[in-house]
Amino acid sequence: MDFSAALDQALTNLHDEGRYRTFIDIERTKGHFPKAIWNKPDGTKQEITVWCGNDYLGMGQHPVVLEAMHEALDATGAGSGGTRNISGTTVYHKRLEAELADLHQKEDALLFTSAYIANDATLSTLPKLFPGLIIYSDNLNHASMIEGIRRNGGAKRVFRHNDPEHLRELMAADDPKAPKLVAFESVYSMDGDIGPIEALCDVADEFGALTYLDEVHAVGLYGPRGGGISERDQLTNRLDIINGTLGKAFGVQGGYIAASAKMCDAVRSYAPGFIFTTSLPPVVAAGAAASVAHLKNDQDLRDRHQAAAKVLKLRLKGLGLPIIDHGTHIVPVMVGNPVHTKVLSDKLLEDHGIYVQPINFPTVPRGTERLRFTPSPVHGPGEINALVHAMDELWSHCALNRAELAG
Amino acid sequence: MDFSAALDQALTNLHDEGRYRTFIDIERTKGHFPKAIWNKPDGTKQEITVWCGNDYLGMGQHPVVLEAMHEALDATGAGSGGTRNISGTTVYHKRLEAELADLHQKEDALLFTSAYIANDATLSTLPKLFPGLIIYSDNLNHASMIEGIRRNGGAKRVFRHNDPEHLRELMAADDPKAPKLVAFESVYSMDGDIGPIEALCDVADEFGALTYLDEVHAVGLYGPRGGGISERDQLTNRLDIINGTLGKAFGVQGGYIAASAKMCDAVRSYAPGFIFTTSLPPVVAAGAAASVAHLKNDQDLRDRHQAAAKVLKLRLKGLGLPIIDHGTHIVPVMVGNPVHTKVLSDKLLEDHGIYVQPINFPTVPRGTERLRFTPSPVHGPGEINALVHAMDELWSHCALNRAELAG
Ligand SMILES: Cc1ncc(COP(=O)(O)O)c(C=O)c1O
Ligand SMILES: Cc1ncc(COP(=O)(O)O)c(C=O)c1O
Repeated sequence: MDFSAALDQALTNLHDEGRYRTFIDIERTKGHFPKAIWNKPDGTKQEITVWCGNDYLGMGQHPVVLEAMHEALDATGAGSGGTRNISGTTVYHKRLEAELADLHQKEDALLFTSAYIANDATLSTLPKLFPGLIIYSDNLNHASMIEGIRRNGGAKRVFRHNDPEHLRELMAADDPKAPKLVAFESVYSMDGDIGPIEALCDVADEFGALTYLDEVHAVGLYGPRGGGISERDQLTNRLDIINGTLGKAFGVQGGYIAASAKMCDAVRSYAPGFIFTTSLPPVVAAGAAASVAHLKNDQDLRDRHQAAAKVLKLRLKGLGLPIIDHGTHIVPVMVGNPVHTKVLSDKLLEDHGIYVQPINFPTVPRGTERLRFTPSPVHGPGEINALVHAMDELWSHCALNRAELAG
Repeated sequence: MDFSAALDQALTNLHDEGRYRTFIDIERTKGHFPKAIWNKPDGTKQEITVWCGNDYLGMGQHPVVLEAMHEALDATGAGSGGTRNISGTTVYHKRLEAELADLHQKEDALLFTSAYIANDATLSTLPKLFPGLIIYSDNLNHASMIEGIRRNGGAKRVFRHNDPEHLRELMAADDPKAPKLVAFESVYSMDGDIGPIEALCDVADEFGALTYLDEVHAVGLYGPRGGGISERDQLTNRLDIINGTLGKAFGVQGGYIAASAKMCDAVRSYAPGFIFTTSLPPVVAAGAAASVAHLKNDQDLRDRHQAAAKVLKLRLKGLGLPIIDHGTHIVPVMVGNPVHTKVLSDKLLEDHGIYVQPINFPTVPRGTERLRFTPSPVHGPGEINALVHAMDELWSHCALNRAELAG
């Protein structure tokens, strides 16, 4: 095989489809979020406003987080120097796990280097613990869950997005004796809609199935202590395993599951993705723990986050733009074509200093390409104004249909 | 299914085999490596010496690394706030990738959240880029490579450890037209032996195969600039893809591949494990870049590392202990039984304040359980003395065979 030609072909396919991804090189400036510096390909710099980050609350620049990190650096140094089993478990990891178990009112929590690997490692390990396990997966589940479910070739059924009836049909068709697990998300990050957690848990209960909930886009943001939609809706005890990230609303990095002590102990003991990797740096664990602890008591920040999202949606709707509104913090504007989406994104960046990355396949289905805005408490009225005016102008300029594409 | 009983069973199996893992909670103190504080289960604390870490050179407490991290925290904050594609690419990531491409004299490098995920994501993506790819894998390859190779059910052949003849046999038996890749390591971390890189590359060349080398336990440590065994032996240009970690000799966290620009671009574009996860925190990237840059010029540290390993091996051999010596920095003492290994490790910790985690299955094959010591330039003569005396005493006390089990 001509390997070089095969690589060319793989890359050409992306260019042809208009979905070759160019990473924008940015530098956020502490204390000035959502402002950042864009390092342009030509070597010059430009100030921009980041409108597509997942540091939803600005915790990545919060003094409580940064102080904890400076302190940990001074006290203990940089990396952990080992896997969790071999010298890489520290008081910082233990404290963070205790903080997370408490957040979700579970007996225990288990840290991973990311929520991606937490999903992948946990979901691929459960069939080892429960031989014959059938996993029922929402068809819009995140790539990391899909990868985990697929990994060991275990039995898998895909139910229609947010459709408990379809889930029931599928479960009823399977051997009643087979162990079962239902896996889904709370806030789906690309549409901003919310899974019907209670109804899905009810169906799971009918069939004696375990429940697995990815709260990656909800932890820190929903619930009186930031425990996610499951906390907000008082459903925590209906879920066997809750997955979350420390890299989005908590502003740092890492992922976890929260579950019973036994479940955490078994996953800890059997999951290669947990066992065979250097643990998170103590400095990262320290920052994350400070962030989780802080957000247990900062409802005001959550309120301001929701308020910013409401204002932006109202203004964009007022212009007749095709936004999707499911009442959450995510503001997608549908474009429906990868090339148009890229043109809009490029113009926003170059002409208006507004940075919103085009979202295309495989992150969303083909034909649903979009701009996805993530307003936050640190996006002020001036920044919202600038965005709304720029969108209005561009939409007219590009003669795009208003409202037509709304989902 | 009774899920709780199934979990009990899974955990009981580990206890019965004597390989249930108890994580020791330690806190390294910056400036005092390899000293650390052990937080005992009963709540008391004890000073210990860490003898099993993978921060091989003590870079985790190096001022150059810590300064870079403090600076990045002050300049840009905690996390990146996004995936690499969606607002999570910063000048810190780009600088580190450039540093790593230069280290391995490759056109480009691609950062991942760990070397585990770099192996897993890359090796599972290559069959998508090269349909029909057959991967030939050394039978002692690390779990992360095995997981990646297995993931999508692609064709896989396992050759005997470090055996180019066996590799040739296997390759000759396959369709000459099928695209092929040979995957192996430089320093195998549990025995400390080194792969026959040149001979394996020769065989790969005969069959027009790509070569993939995991240098996780060699980067920073070997080669005049820390480029690993491939640099030391001037074989860099024989390898298509080099994998390394930022969490061991470099003392921080993260992983990468270095390869041609096209290869990196294609993996970047197609690997879910790269695409769908929050990028490394800028502060981590900054620390790692400082460490890589520093070690390009600190041969003295590498020399002192090797000297420490030589001294320890000489002393332990002098006592007739069954150590494995392949001339690298890793010092395994064979015990051959999980229960004995745990007893030795417990006694070293409790009676002597020496922390060396027992290594058991699945990290090493059953029957080859061991204590694995990792001397470093920060382990002084006093610490080496204490270890040697403790081992001598314990070995006599436990009436273990001397030399008998040596590999
Ligand atoms: C050979 C080998 N490859 C890869 C890894 C994974 O590296 P990381 O800790 O960066 O995930 C390890 C150990 O952790 C290893 O020993
Ligand atoms: C729903 C969902 N789950 C999991 C992840 C992975 O989280 P992390 O960035 O911590 O790997 C993401 C995004 O990155 C996500 O959107």
